[in-house]
Amino acid sequence: MPGNPTILVLNGPNLNLLGLREPEIYGHETLADIEEACLELASELALSVEFRQTNHEGQLVDWIHEARQSADGIVINAGAYSHSSIAILDALTAAGLPVIEVHMSNIYRRESFRHVSYVSRVAQGVICGLGGHGYELALTAIARILRSGD
Amino acid sequence: MPGNPTILVLNGPNLNLLGLREPEIYGHETLADIEEACLELASELALSVEFRQTNHEGQLVDWIHEARQSADGIVINAGAYSHSSIAILDALTAAGLPVIEVHMSNIYRRESFRHVSYVSRVAQGVICGLGGHGYELALTAIARILRSGD
Amino acid sequence: MPGNPTILVLNGPNLNLLGLREPEIYGHETLADIEEACLELASELALSVEFRQTNHEGQLVDWIHEARQSADGIVINAGAYSHSSIAILDALTAAGLPVIEVHMSNIYRRESFRHVSYVSRVAQGVICGLGGHGYELALTAIARILRSGD
Amino acid sequence: MPGNPTILVLNGPNLNLLGLREPEIYGHETLADIEEACLELASELALSVEFRQTNHEGQLVDWIHEARQSADGIVINAGAYSHSSIAILDALTAAGLPVIEVHMSNIYRRESFRHVSYVSRVAQGVICGLGGHGYELALTAIARILRSGD
Amino acid sequence: MPGNPTILVLNGPNLNLLGLREPEIYGHETLADIEEACLELASELALSVEFRQTNHEGQLVDWIHEARQSADGIVINAGAYSHSSIAILDALTAAGLPVIEVHMSNIYRRESFRHVSYVSRVAQGVICGLGGHGYELALTAIARILRSGD
Amino acid sequence: MPGNPTILVLNGPNLNLLGLREPEIYGHETLADIEEACLELASELALSVEFRQTNHEGQLVDWIHEARQSADGIVINAGAYSHSSIAILDALTAAGLPVIEVHMSNIYRRESFRHVSYVSRVAQGVICGLGGHGYELALTAIARILRSGD
Amino acid sequence: MPGNPTILVLNGPNLNLLGLREPEIYGHETLADIEEACLELASELALSVEFRQTNHEGQLVDWIHEARQSADGIVINAGAYSHSSIAILDALTAAGLPVIEVHMSNIYRRESFRHVSYVSRVAQGVICGLGGHGYELALTAIARILRSGD
Amino acid sequence: MPGNPTILVLNGPNLNLLGLREPEIYGHETLADIEEACLELASELALSVEFRQTNHEGQLVDWIHEARQSADGIVINAGAYSHSSIAILDALTAAGLPVIEVHMSNIYRRESFRHVSYVSRVAQGVICGLGGHGYELALTAIARILRSGD
Amino acid sequence: MPGNPTILVLNGPNLNLLGLREPEIYGHETLADIEEACLELASELALSVEFRQTNHEGQLVDWIHEARQSADGIVINAGAYSHSSIAILDALTAAGLPVIEVHMSNIYRRESFRHVSYVSRVAQGVICGLGGHGYELALTAIARILRSGD
Amino acid sequence: MPGNPTILVLNGPNLNLLGLREPEIYGHETLADIEEACLELASELALSVEFRQTNHEGQLVDWIHEARQSADGIVINAGAYSHSSIAILDALTAAGLPVIEVHMSNIYRRESFRHVSYVSRVAQGVICGLGGHGYELALTAIARILRSGD
Amino acid sequence: MPGNPTILVLNGPNLNLLGLREPEIYGHETLADIEEACLELASELALSVEFRQTNHEGQLVDWIHEARQSADGIVINAGAYSHSSIAILDALTAAGLPVIEVHMSNIYRRESFRHVSYVSRVAQGVICGLGGHGYELALTAIARILRSGD
Amino acid sequence: MPGNPTILVLNGPNLNLLGLREPEIYGHETLADIEEACLELASELALSVEFRQTNHEGQLVDWIHEARQSADGIVINAGAYSHSSIAILDALTAAGLPVIEVHMSNIYRRESFRHVSYVSRVAQGVICGLGGHGYELALTAIARILRSGD
Repeated sequence: MPGNPTILVLNGPNLNLLGLREPEIYGHETLADIEEACLELASELALSVEFRQTNHEGQLVDWIHEARQSADGIVINAGAYSHSSIAILDALTAAGLPVIEVHMSNIYRRESFRHVSYVSRVAQGVICGLGGHGYELALTAIARILRSGD
Repeated sequence: MPGNPTILVLNGPNLNLLGLREPEIYGHETLADIEEACLELASELALSVEFRQTNHEGQLVDWIHEARQSADGIVINAGAYSHSSIAILDALTAAGLPVIEVHMSNIYRRESFRHVSYVSRVAQGVICGLGGHGYELALTAIARILRSGD
Repeated sequence: MPGNPTILVLNGPNLNLLGLREPEIYGHETLADIEEACLELASELALSVEFRQTNHEGQLVDWIHEARQSADGIVINAGAYSHSSIAILDALTAAGLPVIEVHMSNIYRRESFRHVSYVSRVAQGVICGLGGHGYELALTAIARILRSGD
Repeated sequence: MPGNPTILVLNGPNLNLLGLREPEIYGHETLADIEEACLELASELALSVEFRQTNHEGQLVDWIHEARQSADGIVINAGAYSHSSIAILDALTAAGLPVIEVHMSNIYRRESFRHVSYVSRVAQGVICGLGGHGYELALTAIARILRSGD
Repeated sequence: MPGNPTILVLNGPNLNLLGLREPEIYGHETLADIEEACLELASELALSVEFRQTNHEGQLVDWIHEARQSADGIVINAGAYSHSSIAILDALTAAGLPVIEVHMSNIYRRESFRHVSYVSRVAQGVICGLGGHGYELALTAIARILRSGD
Repeated sequence: MPGNPTILVLNGPNLNLLGLREPEIYGHETLADIEEACLELASELALSVEFRQTNHEGQLVDWIHEARQSADGIVINAGAYSHSSIAILDALTAAGLPVIEVHMSNIYRRESFRHVSYVSRVAQGVICGLGGHGYELALTAIARILRSGD
Repeated sequence: MPGNPTILVLNGPNLNLLGLREPEIYGHETLADIEEACLELASELALSVEFRQTNHEGQLVDWIHEARQSADGIVINAGAYSHSSIAILDALTAAGLPVIEVHMSNIYRRESFRHVSYVSRVAQGVICGLGGHGYELALTAIARILRSGD
Repeated sequence: MPGNPTILVLNGPNLNLLGLREPEIYGHETLADIEEACLELASELALSVEFRQTNHEGQLVDWIHEARQSADGIVINAGAYSHSSIAILDALTAAGLPVIEVHMSNIYRRESFRHVSYVSRVAQGVICGLGGHGYELALTAIARILRSGD
Repeated sequence: MPGNPTILVLNGPNLNLLGLREPEIYGHETLADIEEACLELASELALSVEFRQTNHEGQLVDWIHEARQSADGIVINAGAYSHSSIAILDALTAAGLPVIEVHMSNIYRRESFRHVSYVSRVAQGVICGLGGHGYELALTAIARILRSGD
Repeated sequence: MPGNPTILVLNGPNLNLLGLREPEIYGHETLADIEEACLELASELALSVEFRQTNHEGQLVDWIHEARQSADGIVINAGAYSHSSIAILDALTAAGLPVIEVHMSNIYRRESFRHVSYVSRVAQGVICGLGGHGYELALTAIARILRSGD
Repeated sequence: MPGNPTILVLNGPNLNLLGLREPEIYGHETLADIEEACLELASELALSVEFRQTNHEGQLVDWIHEARQSADGIVINAGAYSHSSIAILDALTAAGLPVIEVHMSNIYRRESFRHVSYVSRVAQGVICGLGGHGYELALTAIARILRSGD
Repeated sequence: MPGNPTILVLNGPNLNLLGLREPEIYGHETLADIEEACLELASELALSVEFRQTNHEGQLVDWIHEARQSADGIVINAGAYSHSSIAILDALTAAGLPVIEVHMSNIYRRESFRHVSYVSRVAQGVICGLGGHGYELALTAIARILRSGD
């Protein structure tokens, strides 16, 4: 979709297991389902979406560096690394792009070590607790941000 | 709009000043503008929206109690009371309705006393940092929650 | 009941919902039931009881001020405000009357932010975890205190 | 008093000195006086009361174990051990009986190391600051609990 | 006194009891006496003074909002709310007026929970421990600030 | 079993209740069962085992002192005293024997006050969460330590 | 060894250096020696053992994901990552297999930052301080757990 | 000015640089200017003022000791030593004179290590954030205190 | 030694091992040697000394209660219980006798959990780090205190 | 440069972006420029320098292991991993080589989570805040250390 | 007194005021009285005593340095500097002489900031709460230490 | 050396003892040796160096004030005062000169109270753990800073 702004959607550790385990708790939605819904919405929003997942902190840092050249915004669910990774914080700061942080669950209702996110220190917006739908809201938000030039 | 689910949108202290002060920082969007955007979106989503603001903690508690009879969901930006009000937490718990928490700014990038929200302990979802647009995303989210029966 | 000592029984936020929600947890006893039991017991103890509830912190302060003229003792369940209200602590200190603090639930078995009560700093006695019966015990206790002149 | 429910009233360290020291502060009421008042009230309430005191933490644990066979409820003033004894907490948990915690003084108005009680983590109710009268209120409360089957 | 700058002097919870209780501790000076002394001094300083008291946090917020239109400076003794009210902090920040914080007692010599004041985060100056005279010094200070254009 | 090294197996408060309460949680294994399994294994390992339980901290200290003369190693489950007893730590340090600490449950998954063990400061090894089997593993471990002269 | 349950034995950072450095402290036992002892014991216990080591946190997460398909239990010495990796905790939780945590040294006798292990939050049992022998005890324990169906 | 009460005005480290550095921040007022304004006001208030500055903590202690003989009150801006000097606290306590603490800036708006002042533990009043004018208010306050014999 | 004031010298857990273990560290002085030196010095000071040791906290409390009748002062080395026993603190407070606390080692140079002593909250004097000689200094001090009537 | 001691210069996450972003803040010096300056200086100092960068924590651990065979000293700027990586600390400890830690910026002037470095626990020297020049000073320092055999 | 060991007795800030203020609290004993008692005792103990006082931290450091040449032991009451001076700790460590710390009052019964002493980290013994007599006990202790060559 | 930039090298408490004590630990290098090496290097770098030492905090403040007129940069090893002196921090901030902080030892490997340095808050660079050589590196660094005009 040439000419459209590109959004990099990054997923951190264990998110590849979504929908494959404990469906009675997490639902049947897989990461692939979320990706599909995002692509569909992206098309409506005239965005290009690049969707990735890794369990490696360093890989997330590498991808964020890449985004400096190839993307116009970042939607990131850094999973467990959100709570400990200063490296990801520094990479996002260096990227200088609009960032929306997403979490499937409401991290503020879970163990206290999940209440702090280094990503939140650099993200423009934070959306959590809304499952896969949160990614769609994040795309909607970043689309508006890019449109408004803010 | 009879038959539509009703969402109570509650706003806490100082939010009545939105857009009236420091527009270079907070923008020119007033609370009335946000209300208008919400009403318009509500119509698309087949929701009834009731929009209120108060500077009094006890008033927020009273309104949440009322919602037990008259509403199907709550979107709340409790402002400064988010960080200290156990009374609002207890009222929301008693209400037993889906709750989405909204903040205009990204509270996790501000002073550390704004990083803790009692509302987050009971909200299903939290959206912050996206300005008035966050209210619209919250309505979208609560509409989906009501539809899915979750 | 002229000539009898007057006890002001104050109830804070959300206590108006007692018995109306989650009866399987909190039981079917309403605040009105508790008031009735208190009035009956008061009559046995030769006390006059004035029973009130509000969701507003400032209202509680106002009522405590009033008590300086019109009451001989205070039984107070300040609910969520117990854990945060220095204003109520100061008002009770200024009132200079015997104070018994009551909580429906055992607050020391709940979240840690409920373990601290400013009211406890000024109350002569604390009774918690005994449901509505705790109010009756509190009246019994304050009756004895008034009789002993302690 | 065969057939009556039996309540074990346990007293921890230094409570044997009640009334024997600093009567201008603690009053002239001795532990024997309290026991007597409890026995009298027990008779009214159709309870059997077994009253004991020890300065040894291990002895309190032993007695609580005993209560599993011989008692229907426990009223305990564990004194200084309240603030440090996980062993007593575990014993009370294992006993599986209704427990009411009593303190002569309002521990929340004293040094901060007295503000935390391990006993409160397992007790159904807590009564403090009401001197020897607190034991009587505790018996009244436990009688009602046993009657209600709660 | 048309043309004179207007100073709003706000008083928080329990300050209405000044002089009415424990005169051996707090002296016989009432809030009305302080108001009178302030009005007299205001006249010397060519200031208009508006003097108010409330026990309600939300009322203080409302009055501060009002001051944005009607006052040139604020002298505030928020009493117990000083130590917990982020709402008042936010209102004062939004007001954008010079603020002087006053406390009757030296709060730094009292309980540790009185050592932190949210008002101090936005006040230009803080005066405490000097009783009613502190209000007069605050007016003197704000007069100089307004004269210097600082 | 003359000539065999002797291992003192010490059990602290409430362990005498194992298997007698809440079997659906703790299983049906009693302390006597564990002792029997230990004696059987000890015979295979050519160890002499002395097995004891007490609810008294001082008794544990006395027994550890005894072990200086009569034992070659200590396996200890100090129960609740693990988390608070410096006296037991000092006694074990003075004993100068190999020590293996055992806990039935995984203490690191329970309340935070159970996460710290003074016994762990002096134990060579720690085994927890494996129920009665943990004692057998501890004997196996201490047998190897004694054989290796480490 | 078809038909035998499979245990994945995972080793984290720096464990590849065992026995190669400071043998006067850590002994001459290498990770290969431990693997060999484990394989030998596994054969006795009718277990299949898969033994791996990596210095990469993400690799440990990947391997744990794999184990969901290919293993019946996990023995893990996550080394330094034990103390900081929420990602490994989440992966182990998702795996839903019995987990035994092993540490060569007694981590509770070392620097305080080694006293907390995220792995302990999900492990059924923890064994530490017993060197390479700890792995053998862990295999013995997991064999019994698998046999008992617990 | 024989017969007038004498006030010792003490200034701590770095205050000698006032007005000499960063005038765009601190203004052009030097310590000499403040001294001059104080002397002028002292004359109106019928006070004798002795004005001193030192960078040495011990010197401040020596001067406070001297004041026991030669002064009737102390105004002190202990600068950086306010936050760490127990020696100055002890000296002021021993002096037994009325003390007013002054700070040029509002220390509660600066780094958190400046929020605690040992001087505040002994001062009757605290004035901060009002620049050199704060010294004049302090003199006014101490004059009234001396007049009232309080 | 009839007529002489009686000093109870109490020793807590593990002190019975003095001189029997690690003589290269603790020296060859046994508790019996210290007792002997104390008796000799007591004779010079015209004091009666009663010297006791126990490993049981409850026993120490019992002995302190006894001292209320039979002693004129207490010298106590509560060993490990110093750091955790509120029961001993309360007993000493109730005893109302002069108390000198002794420790063989300098507890402030050891692990941080040994830096806090509940005994110090009630002791008139504290002597530590001087080995058995500290007991003699304590007797000398208490003799002077008794002589001076302080 | 055969025969020269070899220094491994390791760079952690985000250091590959030096000079490429925000040159007005970080300057135009790239990591390649720093490498070049180091190689030039190394030649003067008769050192061999091996210069590497990675965003992966595990890779840094692998390289440090390698250094045990192939290097005589390590200069390390572990970037964000400095503040959280116990794995790198353990690897450096195992390496047993002289280590100099470098940071481009003065980490003690930044956010508090950057004030703690695990690398500092094992480094012989720490140099920070001096930009790329810090690497040159580190090489100078390690050269002297190697010469002095310290 | 040639040939006698020399003890430097150092006194810190505010100790020069002993006996001159609040005699009803601190008694009438002056520092000169204490010095005289020390000199008398020194003569009995065959010690030379050099007695000094200063309010300057740096002076105490200078004097301790001097002691390296001219003294055989140090008795020090560093007063308020005990609680904050790392410089004095370092000087005493460098001096390498036996040190006894003295405090007039029992610092552990006062404000919590007086509970920590840097001097205690290097002192062999600590004596507090025994007034001027504590200095004499300290001299007695240091005499024995010097005799024993310990 | 007229025309050369002047660097003030300041040394705090106890540094005068370098090389005179515990040479097996600190080496034989005295402060005079370091000064000599600095002077020699300064000559190469075309700097003028003024080298001073004092044990008095106030003296360091005085010298830093002086530097405002007479120096172009400051190298400072404030020794123990680094960890507690806000006065030195304020003086260095006021000086407005480039500052390099030096420590002989790696303070981050010592007691935790040495891990915080107020000097680091204002220093451009920090060098520690490199002994006397650290001073030379600091001079090299400051020379480059002065040359670059940064």
